[in-house]
Amino acid sequence: MKKVAVIMGSDSDLSVMMDAVEKLKHFGIPYEVHVISAHRTPAAAEQFASSAADNGFGVIIAGAGKAAHLGGVLAAYTTLPVIGVPIKTSMMGGLDSLLSIVQMPSGIPVATVGVNGAANAGILAAQMLSLEDPSLVEKLSAFKEDMAQSVAKKDAKIQSKVY
Amino acid sequence: MKKVAVIMGSDSDLSVMMDAVEKLKHFGIPYEVHVISAHRTPAAAEQFASSAADNGFGVIIAGAGKAAHLGGVLAAYTTLPVIGVPIKTSMMGGLDSLLSIVQMPSGIPVATVGVNGAANAGILAAQMLSLEDPSLVEKLSAFKEDMAQSVAKKDAKIQSKVY
Amino acid sequence: MKKVAVIMGSDSDLSVMMDAVEKLKHFGIPYEVHVISAHRTPAAAEQFASSAADNGFGVIIAGAGKAAHLGGVLAAYTTLPVIGVPIKTSMMGGLDSLLSIVQMPSGIPVATVGVNGAANAGILAAQMLSLEDPSLVEKLSAFKEDMAQSVAKKDAKIQSKVY
Amino acid sequence: MKKVAVIMGSDSDLSVMMDAVEKLKHFGIPYEVHVISAHRTPAAAEQFASSAADNGFGVIIAGAGKAAHLGGVLAAYTTLPVIGVPIKTSMMGGLDSLLSIVQMPSGIPVATVGVNGAANAGILAAQMLSLEDPSLVEKLSAFKEDMAQSVAKKDAKIQSKVY
Amino acid sequence: MKKVAVIMGSDSDLSVMMDAVEKLKHFGIPYEVHVISAHRTPAAAEQFASSAADNGFGVIIAGAGKAAHLGGVLAAYTTLPVIGVPIKTSMMGGLDSLLSIVQMPSGIPVATVGVNGAANAGILAAQMLSLEDPSLVEKLSAFKEDMAQSVAKKDAKIQSKVY
Amino acid sequence: MKKVAVIMGSDSDLSVMMDAVEKLKHFGIPYEVHVISAHRTPAAAEQFASSAADNGFGVIIAGAGKAAHLGGVLAAYTTLPVIGVPIKTSMMGGLDSLLSIVQMPSGIPVATVGVNGAANAGILAAQMLSLEDPSLVEKLSAFKEDMAQSVAKKDAKIQSKVY
Amino acid sequence: MKKVAVIMGSDSDLSVMMDAVEKLKHFGIPYEVHVISAHRTPAAAEQFASSAADNGFGVIIAGAGKAAHLGGVLAAYTTLPVIGVPIKTSMMGGLDSLLSIVQMPSGIPVATVGVNGAANAGILAAQMLSLEDPSLVEKLSAFKEDMAQSVAKKDAKIQSKVY
Amino acid sequence: MKKVAVIMGSDSDLSVMMDAVEKLKHFGIPYEVHVISAHRTPAAAEQFASSAADNGFGVIIAGAGKAAHLGGVLAAYTTLPVIGVPIKTSMMGGLDSLLSIVQMPSGIPVATVGVNGAANAGILAAQMLSLEDPSLVEKLSAFKEDMAQSVAKKDAKIQSKVY
Repeated sequence: MKKVAVIMGSDSDLSVMMDAVEKLKHFGIPYEVHVISAHRTPAAAEQFASSAADNGFGVIIAGAGKAAHLGGVLAAYTTLPVIGVPIKTSMMGGLDSLLSIVQMPSGIPVATVGVNGAANAGILAAQMLSLEDPSLVEKLSAFKEDMAQSVAKKDAKIQSKVY
Repeated sequence: MKKVAVIMGSDSDLSVMMDAVEKLKHFGIPYEVHVISAHRTPAAAEQFASSAADNGFGVIIAGAGKAAHLGGVLAAYTTLPVIGVPIKTSMMGGLDSLLSIVQMPSGIPVATVGVNGAANAGILAAQMLSLEDPSLVEKLSAFKEDMAQSVAKKDAKIQSKVY
Repeated sequence: MKKVAVIMGSDSDLSVMMDAVEKLKHFGIPYEVHVISAHRTPAAAEQFASSAADNGFGVIIAGAGKAAHLGGVLAAYTTLPVIGVPIKTSMMGGLDSLLSIVQMPSGIPVATVGVNGAANAGILAAQMLSLEDPSLVEKLSAFKEDMAQSVAKKDAKIQSKVY
Repeated sequence: MKKVAVIMGSDSDLSVMMDAVEKLKHFGIPYEVHVISAHRTPAAAEQFASSAADNGFGVIIAGAGKAAHLGGVLAAYTTLPVIGVPIKTSMMGGLDSLLSIVQMPSGIPVATVGVNGAANAGILAAQMLSLEDPSLVEKLSAFKEDMAQSVAKKDAKIQSKVY
Repeated sequence: MKKVAVIMGSDSDLSVMMDAVEKLKHFGIPYEVHVISAHRTPAAAEQFASSAADNGFGVIIAGAGKAAHLGGVLAAYTTLPVIGVPIKTSMMGGLDSLLSIVQMPSGIPVATVGVNGAANAGILAAQMLSLEDPSLVEKLSAFKEDMAQSVAKKDAKIQSKVY
Repeated sequence: MKKVAVIMGSDSDLSVMMDAVEKLKHFGIPYEVHVISAHRTPAAAEQFASSAADNGFGVIIAGAGKAAHLGGVLAAYTTLPVIGVPIKTSMMGGLDSLLSIVQMPSGIPVATVGVNGAANAGILAAQMLSLEDPSLVEKLSAFKEDMAQSVAKKDAKIQSKVY
Repeated sequence: MKKVAVIMGSDSDLSVMMDAVEKLKHFGIPYEVHVISAHRTPAAAEQFASSAADNGFGVIIAGAGKAAHLGGVLAAYTTLPVIGVPIKTSMMGGLDSLLSIVQMPSGIPVATVGVNGAANAGILAAQMLSLEDPSLVEKLSAFKEDMAQSVAKKDAKIQSKVY
Repeated sequence: MKKVAVIMGSDSDLSVMMDAVEKLKHFGIPYEVHVISAHRTPAAAEQFASSAADNGFGVIIAGAGKAAHLGGVLAAYTTLPVIGVPIKTSMMGGLDSLLSIVQMPSGIPVATVGVNGAANAGILAAQMLSLEDPSLVEKLSAFKEDMAQSVAKKDAKIQSKVY
């Protein structure tokens, strides 16, 4: 199975990005985690993205905050789908990160999830990889079913709590 | 090859969403275009999304504006990757559409592109499908190369223009 | 008397939504509290909203945060008035929740109150139900009078405090 | 049947607010239209709201822009449900109007619809009045059905257009 | 000398509004402090503003948060200058309060200071009253001079601190 | 009677600022109009503000856009009340101008009106000057009465229009 | 004298960026104009920035819109000062461009000017180069003086216009 | 070597602005630190900026918050490059400071860095001064290299941490 790369611009983003890692583990998808900065290690960013497909990666997840260029810079060097995770900042709750990632110019998309939405990035990567892996479809369906049951349990539980 | 569904919440979004269709045509990806409203035809939305995988779709592109629930509602009923296109509105240039699409709760991702970024939605769909179709990788690489050459030509041309 | 449904997208919203429950209790209006997610349990949302009127509900209150589709999704399946409560988030203090709820497309209104304004949602539900129940009009008038007297007392008290 | 009051702070808002009037006409609901300013004619606002219930009104719709106090001022003087319509302005597409209306303090709700959402205000008023009028429930169901069929027609039509 | 009224919509705003009181004390300006709500005690608001000039007030300071109508409602009933103090909220740091106060329609101004800027409201009131009281001009000049010297001292002090 | 200075940072703001001039004319208040830039002619700004009181001015109205420092710079050099008029820009409808003017640090207030609210600035200046001029109180009361009658006429007129 | 590079991400930005060119011409500073895209021609961006100092450039001006990474990407490859010009977009008047440029992470500054502020970028480049070129200091002083006189003329002219 | 002035509007900004001082120390650039307020000590601001070049300064760094006029006021009195540091506030995370600094009118640029971006201000000052000092170029290159190695180390370290 193709690997997923979980890249973050700074190791201070690790706790957020671990949500993506956990989802990849849950779905049994191989992954690598890296700290690569679009601005401090641009050569590493270029090198990683340029060779990602050849190195067995199928999807790249990039988390970055503020003027968050990481996803766009990686996307510039690969045709693999790149998922961007805007990291929360104090500037209007991460609006700077979000706009810096999602408003990409025509030609170079970055698939953006919500602010600090690394878990959804992991699930989205699984959905992409499921296009060529039927076993992932099953796992995703089971995951969906589990979520529904969990909500149903909470619904049942809240009755006793409130009344 | 799997099909891509291009869904819009209102036929007034057609001119924007045609950018996605054109990119799909460019890459030779089969597609269907539909007008389905999360709020006015919720049953149609459920039915389409629930059966999309069985009907040969690999990716769903959903364009909607204002309180743009279409992408999220479709994603609730399928494990296929769903790409959301926020349609520009007069509320801060489409910030309402963008936040309504990108800020999905954990568990149900919508891969969001920029406001009116339907062209990028088409390219992103191609990137996802390229995971199981090597010919699409080649086409995406050629597309990237064409963009680079087009910019290089403009760079050359601007010299004569400005001086 | 018709019941009011207090629905929340996640049980983490319970403490906010209890403000609505308390107001319903205050006015002696029967109610039910449920956890139903537009995205994780879409079938439950459809089922609840479709049968709400037949099950004796007169008003639905829906609290949700971020890309808050719950109110809109419920409103799609019923002609009962739906009141939306945007839950506070870190994205500009809940602007994402607010815009996702209030900016509904033409045809499917959601009556939106302020961010975390569940108490007002409860009062608004009482106002709606008072259209067919004169005793509620009296209770609402008394509530208004109590608020005025409470402010008047604080006004009197502040004189001694400040001088 | 109870009447609906359509109040606007300025006659420049008439073209927007006519969307509410048209929906009330569609549902056969009696209405009155007034220009009353919370700031320029505060006495008229007080008088209208204080006597609205006695004068046969069931719902008040208030449209206003910028520092839009009209809905809140009317709600201060009545226990009838008040629906607020934020009028679009040049300040971030009407965000000033929206926040001035929706962010009401606890105790005095204003049921807010989207920016320029007067049509939805009319429908919402109909939904409220339908709580005591079964014939309105039927009309609202028919309206919902018509909307769904209209979208379905557009969906069918778009097939021939795009391919 | 004319009095200044310091009005707040809720006693929870007292700690902020005390900054205005302190400035009024500093300049020796007589004042009264009141809790009056535009929405919960609209009659008190009307009565206070209508008779403020006759009761010896020269300026009204009004502090309120969220959909902050207090300043506008008072200004509707008096020709005295009204100063509005937007109270900080969680909605983008008080942007809702600010826009609700400053964006008044033509004809009814509210002199708005910054979010939580009650101290500046007190100074502004002193500046207005100084138009008919030369002793206040002197006090304001001295205040300005004191501020300048305080900054100059901090400038001198920082040299030893930093080097 | 004291004069009012109407200052603008650029002559491109003249059409907006004429609304203030017209209100001053209406109230019979003497005025001067100047183009003075806080950044391009800082010496002129200092000189004007420093000598404004001695030159017979009672109030300064300052209109400026974008990083609108004019009001604050003038206020730094005088104890006269300074009214700031944020000029509309393309940055979120003038939010840059508004925040640059209203968010003044403690000690130096600028009485801010709404975006492009020059008419209100003129009225506010009249209200300030009315503190020492009873004839202005009468004119302001008459102006208020005229506004109320104008709205009442529009209310009457709209009945015939709509029905 | 060192050259200034005026780079834009798309030739559609040329009309805005010509304001920078005109200022450079005015100050007699040699320049080159290029179209280089951070995302479409990342190799060209790297090559240009890496060799800019060796090629005789002293300052780089980079104009880009939406998720505007150009300035940051160039700054990653050079120690020359990089000036960023956010191009106006429909997303809140260019807030996306502004935040994408100005909110750079620690270590890699981009000197940001206002939205569409290319003229100021040209002047800022001249100020930087003036640190080693006394003749530029003189030209900048003369430019400042000209601006002041131009404002003074407009101030004189407006007197005749308004009165 | 020319000195860098680090000016702040209030000594409460010292902890943020020390990041600039530390970077200047790191690069061996002489500096002075001052507390000067555009509004409370406008004469000091004028005097400092007017004589800065003659006093051996090459660059001015100005940090200020809210209606942050300091950078613009200093820039009005000098042709030296002025770097503005927006200090974080509670108004949307410093958006007021940012817009007040960056949106300068044409003719008077302020080179703006990110909110609380004082470290980048120090680096940017070093980049500007490096135009006439080759030893600074070397130090800046070494700094860049150190940053890259630091990120590379964190990348290596994270492998052991995550797996």
